[in-house]
Amino acid sequence: MSALITLTTDFGIGSPYVAAMKGIILGMNPAARVTDISHEIPPQDVRHAAIVLAESTPWFPAGTIHVAVVDPGVGTARRLIYAHLGDQHYLAPDNGVFSLLAKRNRPIRIIEVANAEYWLPEVSHTFHGRDILAPVAAQLSLGLEPERLGPALPQIQTLDWPDPVVTGSRIEGAVRWIDRFGNLITNITASMLAPGRSAGGLTIDCAGREIAGLSACYGQHPPGTLAGLVGSSGYLEIAVAESSAARMLEATVGTPVAVRWQP
Amino acid sequence: MSALITLTTDFGIGSPYVAAMKGIILGMNPAARVTDISHEIPPQDVRHAAIVLAESTPWFPAGTIHVAVVDPGVGTARRLIYAHLGDQHYLAPDNGVFSLLAKRNRPIRIIEVANAEYWLPEVSHTFHGRDILAPVAAQLSLGLEPERLGPALPQIQTLDWPDPVVTGSRIEGAVRWIDRFGNLITNITASMLAPGRSAGGLTIDCAGREIAGLSACYGQHPPGTLAGLVGSSGYLEIAVAESSAARMLEATVGTPVAVRWQP
Amino acid sequence: MSALITLTTDFGIGSPYVAAMKGIILGMNPAARVTDISHEIPPQDVRHAAIVLAESTPWFPAGTIHVAVVDPGVGTARRLIYAHLGDQHYLAPDNGVFSLLAKRNRPIRIIEVANAEYWLPEVSHTFHGRDILAPVAAQLSLGLEPERLGPALPQIQTLDWPDPVVTGSRIEGAVRWIDRFGNLITNITASMLAPGRSAGGLTIDCAGREIAGLSACYGQHPPGTLAGLVGSSGYLEIAVAESSAARMLEATVGTPVAVRWQP
Repeated sequence: MSALITLTTDFGIGSPYVAAMKGIILGMNPAARVTDISHEIPPQDVRHAAIVLAESTPWFPAGTIHVAVVDPGVGTARRLIYAHLGDQHYLAPDNGVFSLLAKRNRPIRIIEVANAEYWLPEVSHTFHGRDILAPVAAQLSLGLEPERLGPALPQIQTLDWPDPVVTGSRIEGAVRWIDRFGNLITNITASMLAPGRSAGGLTIDCAGREIAGLSACYGQHPPGTLAGLVGSSGYLEIAVAESSAARMLEATVGTPVAVRWQP
Repeated sequence: MSALITLTTDFGIGSPYVAAMKGIILGMNPAARVTDISHEIPPQDVRHAAIVLAESTPWFPAGTIHVAVVDPGVGTARRLIYAHLGDQHYLAPDNGVFSLLAKRNRPIRIIEVANAEYWLPEVSHTFHGRDILAPVAAQLSLGLEPERLGPALPQIQTLDWPDPVVTGSRIEGAVRWIDRFGNLITNITASMLAPGRSAGGLTIDCAGREIAGLSACYGQHPPGTLAGLVGSSGYLEIAVAESSAARMLEATVGTPVAVRWQP
Repeated sequence: MSALITLTTDFGIGSPYVAAMKGIILGMNPAARVTDISHEIPPQDVRHAAIVLAESTPWFPAGTIHVAVVDPGVGTARRLIYAHLGDQHYLAPDNGVFSLLAKRNRPIRIIEVANAEYWLPEVSHTFHGRDILAPVAAQLSLGLEPERLGPALPQIQTLDWPDPVVTGSRIEGAVRWIDRFGNLITNITASMLAPGRSAGGLTIDCAGREIAGLSACYGQHPPGTLAGLVGSSGYLEIAVAESSAARMLEATVGTPVAVRWQP
């Protein structure tokens, strides 16, 4: 494992809780390189964190350690886990935050973080990110074998996250997340769209609006025009050039998006 | 002193002022490791900064240099100081921003930052963080003896920050800060609560609501339930499972919180 | 070029897009040091980004590589460029984001980022920051000669950015940006004000209000008082002690600001 450690939390940017985690990691491994992914996960929104982790962590160098603390169940019986997914290492509460990552890469190894030997001497009931996960991440970055953290687990917790329904010349999906520009990123992949693109004449339906065809990029259209395109993560997006599709369509996470074509 | 330097300001995340400070530090000491604590201190809110510093900086490795720039008096006669508190080093305007830290650890050494030899050649009237504190932090991280910065001072400025009043079977305290989740963190410590916990039957009063007993963690209650618990910093917190106590109780910093029990 | 790389984007703090860029850079050059300047540029606001870059990047050590991704034209024919300005290196879409920097320092070298050899193998239509600029920045930090990126260009794109009109004993300028404190930073420089200061009796007009004279700093005035002063970047600012001039004057970027004096 490398000395590169990322942090993803719902603590809010500038939270002293985040700084405390960094202080502990750097105290235990002065050579650690701590990088923020996001501290702006909406409070206790495990699904949002799952998306952010899926969109960002696979781009990190192999061996990076990713710590995610979005933890509505802190202090209850929910477990803390280490998971090896793809070529990355993860630490988090076992609450489904790795659901999307695990759809792409079957976990190579899952271990319960149970051995208190590697935790802070005193563990609070409300901040396991600081008291358990930060010191464990630091130890892993120093070369601790993950087996030492606790017993192996057969599987991780996953959240029900329906995939689009593809039937003949129709795909029924939904908005999965919305970025800062108001672009609606759906759960419909480029490969699902391929038959429709070959057939020509693809139409997107969302929030009572019809969008004809796929565009190559945001900048191709006059400002204010609705467009569908395959975004940088390989999913269908609905965008408005120089404006917000979320606002124009009053769409939210979960809003249905359908794609149809002449068979 | 280490090459680890933290920054805490009210400039706002993404402010070019913060980046300028980082640029100067890295230019003077390319081996410096600059870490953000917070740039989201509400503008000129010295008390908020004092809380953030107290909650975060003690977790950093011994020898870390913490620079705090929340400075309503910039350009007036207020002093800039270096302070050695606990095993950490601090630089800031002498405006009370270290009040809470100094309650826990009597300053070991206080020095006025007065020797212009270690400042930028040209000092503006409005940005001493960039022109004085950033270069001084860089010099300290390179091994400069703090004595060289200026004359020793007998004490730092402190803000009046009342402690709870504890009388028999009653504690009268207040909300000291509110975190992103809307948890109300009071100034009442776990040790003040100990007699009440032994006596059994502790009751918390806040904003016209009565909370019976102490919980172990947030996750123990059904969503929407008010609960009192000892938080991760060792203070009594009032929380609502999966929601905001601040919103439910319309509480703000300073809202009274009392704890009582059968004597 | 150094291994220090800064990022400026309009992705929003905590965006997985930012983290993806960091992951790619650190994967290609594990010794790179990635520092955030801002990810809070208002969406697609190239002018705002130009100001942030001008206010922050010149403070970085010589040889730093600055990557700016505010890119309303992503996927269209707009070019990506490398520019050497002052002692710093820059990568961005060629959309005017370097306009203010180039006013101060004639570009030493401009090169089109055209050679796909240094990009990710697969380039999306919507995220050139990740697919092109991040890997190119990493390569430059590893020692790649900028000439290898593509053909030299004669000039960069610049935005029309009017300077103040100075006539006898009068300067007609405007608010150029507003910081987090609500201070109005104008485009009027200290040197333009010099004749008026020597003459004595300088008056500032903004939003129907008259401000007499220049102050030395924010802290000099009673809270709530309007004041004009030369800020830390060398420009005339209009400020309200412990409050927001933008709110008090209902001023925005572009609001006219005039300075006059007795000739």
